[in-house]
Amino acid sequence: MSLPIGATIGILGGGQLGRMLAMAAAKLGFKTLVFAPGENLPAAQVSNRHMNAAYDDVLALQAFAGACDVVTLEWENVPVSAVETIEAVGTRVRPGAGALSVAQDRVEEKVFLERCGIDCAPWRAVDTVSDLHDALAEMGPDAILKTRRDGYDGKGQVRLHGDTDALSAWNELAGASAILEGFVPFNMEISVVLARDPIGQVVTYTPPHNTHARGILRHCSVPAPIPETVARDAQRLATKLADALDYVGVLALEMFVMPDGSLLANEFAPRVHNSGHWTPEACETGQFENHIRAVAGWPLGASTLLYAVEMENLIGADAAESAQAMLARGSVTLYGKEEIRPGRKMGHIVRKTG
Amino acid sequence: MSLPIGATIGILGGGQLGRMLAMAAAKLGFKTLVFAPGENLPAAQVSNRHMNAAYDDVLALQAFAGACDVVTLEWENVPVSAVETIEAVGTRVRPGAGALSVAQDRVEEKVFLERCGIDCAPWRAVDTVSDLHDALAEMGPDAILKTRRDGYDGKGQVRLHGDTDALSAWNELAGASAILEGFVPFNMEISVVLARDPIGQVVTYTPPHNTHARGILRHCSVPAPIPETVARDAQRLATKLADALDYVGVLALEMFVMPDGSLLANEFAPRVHNSGHWTPEACETGQFENHIRAVAGWPLGASTLLYAVEMENLIGADAAESAQAMLARGSVTLYGKEEIRPGRKMGHIVRKTG
Repeated sequence: MSLPIGATIGILGGGQLGRMLAMAAAKLGFKTLVFAPGENLPAAQVSNRHMNAAYDDVLALQAFAGACDVVTLEWENVPVSAVETIEAVGTRVRPGAGALSVAQDRVEEKVFLERCGIDCAPWRAVDTVSDLHDALAEMGPDAILKTRRDGYDGKGQVRLHGDTDALSAWNELAGASAILEGFVPFNMEISVVLARDPIGQVVTYTPPHNTHARGILRHCSVPAPIPETVARDAQRLATKLADALDYVGVLALEMFVMPDGSLLANEFAPRVHNSGHWTPEACETGQFENHIRAVAGWPLGASTLLYAVEMENLIGADAAESAQAMLARGSVTLYGKEEIRPGRKMGHIVRKTG
Repeated sequence: MSLPIGATIGILGGGQLGRMLAMAAAKLGFKTLVFAPGENLPAAQVSNRHMNAAYDDVLALQAFAGACDVVTLEWENVPVSAVETIEAVGTRVRPGAGALSVAQDRVEEKVFLERCGIDCAPWRAVDTVSDLHDALAEMGPDAILKTRRDGYDGKGQVRLHGDTDALSAWNELAGASAILEGFVPFNMEISVVLARDPIGQVVTYTPPHNTHARGILRHCSVPAPIPETVARDAQRLATKLADALDYVGVLALEMFVMPDGSLLANEFAPRVHNSGHWTPEACETGQFENHIRAVAGWPLGASTLLYAVEMENLIGADAAESAQAMLARGSVTLYGKEEIRPGRKMGHIVRKTG
């Protein structure tokens, strides 16, 4: 399936990723219809139409499906049932329910990655406090306890140290099914953003070096200071994952680079990714355009890096800085969010460095 | 005046230039409100809001003015009276009525250019058929007769040759006040696109070499194959014009390069310009973003050319080509126009050449 020029692309989710997807779609002449609960959402501001409805509103989802030529998503926690409702009407969702359900459960995700032959940092499923004690005994005291579902940007996570009481950590997650991930002494975190089209063609972007603060991506530096062979390994692993998922669209795989150059997967996101926000400026084709091309069944564009670059997120009060000060630091993208809240992603700045 | 983040920018006009301005505004976190008569307009598809009203609807213009923090335009034939109505409410229009009224009349435009010390190709105001005979006798038989007002993309123009009957040409323009422009044996046409901010800072883009077909821009090649000194002269002249108009926003000056390297002005446009459509891809800051920054009172971005580039317009049936074929030729921008009509600008393609 290849969409005709002027077709309508539906986007599940109304945040900044949807906003940048909608603009990439408009550049290619597509119409966009955003489905998300809420008013004045970042994505709705630049779309042809917005349906303000809940993800469990079956009638609204059916109307949405009927109005779209293809549907995509900007948020991995869209309920799989919503995707199934849309697909039942006969409208294709890319990526589909399969990739989404794997990505929504951290345990299923690790199992899938390992089944693909992609090594992960040590992990254990934790369903009871006694599981947690056993896992800590096995993996050592430095670890992160995360809910299996619904976590993002450091939410639903508790960091454990030698002196942390496992019971209080467990209680902090309110008894949700969890996963314990052991710390690994990595050199740095990188990610591979790639796009895969319906006939299995893949373009991979140059891996950035990612730095986080309080669980939220803070900064990318591109290219990551790693040997070419490690970068290629990372791209090969991400491609393996996308092939195994029979994935269509942009996907990101976060990985730890170990001192010996080996790679351990952290997690993947079945969507355009914050660690690819420098691609529209610095690459021949950005991640948003390539995602739209993939879901439209259009040929992918080259991901060639045109120059070295840094990307910095504007989080919470970072966006209270003056426009003048921001613009002095590079190419500014702001997400159209009215209210500044701590930890809220408000925008990002891309700076040419080479 | 410097707009706060999240302010609303009004755009008079709903075409592709407004579409690209609205997306540039959204990138910087602004809201946009498009004022233009019509449904499903290219600019309205990517804006927060659209007011579908006529340019002489005073009440609608006043409501529009009240809803915007600043107003700009994407079309030089917006009636000056509409701009005056908006300004009377106290909302600033950038560029203002002054630049607009000069640009709307080809005779006033030439007079203004020459008063700035910018040479023009030979021209004569023509109000009667006897004026036309006199002008042809003076300037020679090779010339173009154009209406003084409301012409664009080759409309309202008749080309005269040695054997053309002046009377039939005059009748073709239906007796509108006109201007006769003599042909000059130029080497090529170039243009300077520049942005000027409210405190008079100017950034100029590298001049492209422009090629037209049937009065419509067809192709730009950047940089134009001219000596550096000629390029700098052209930029200096365009800056002189912008300063003389006390201009705010992006302006384009089209010029003929003569065999001796001298420059003759053709016309200027008080808006973002088709001959600058390669700037978002190939320059540090594109013309649309710099226009928005200028009208918002935000600092301008660097216009540095990052690589050599070609831009090709997709006109009429060009857009019936497959998406695949278009994408194979470069970065594609389509304007969201449903109907293909002869001579209608449907999109453009930008290709890196160096």
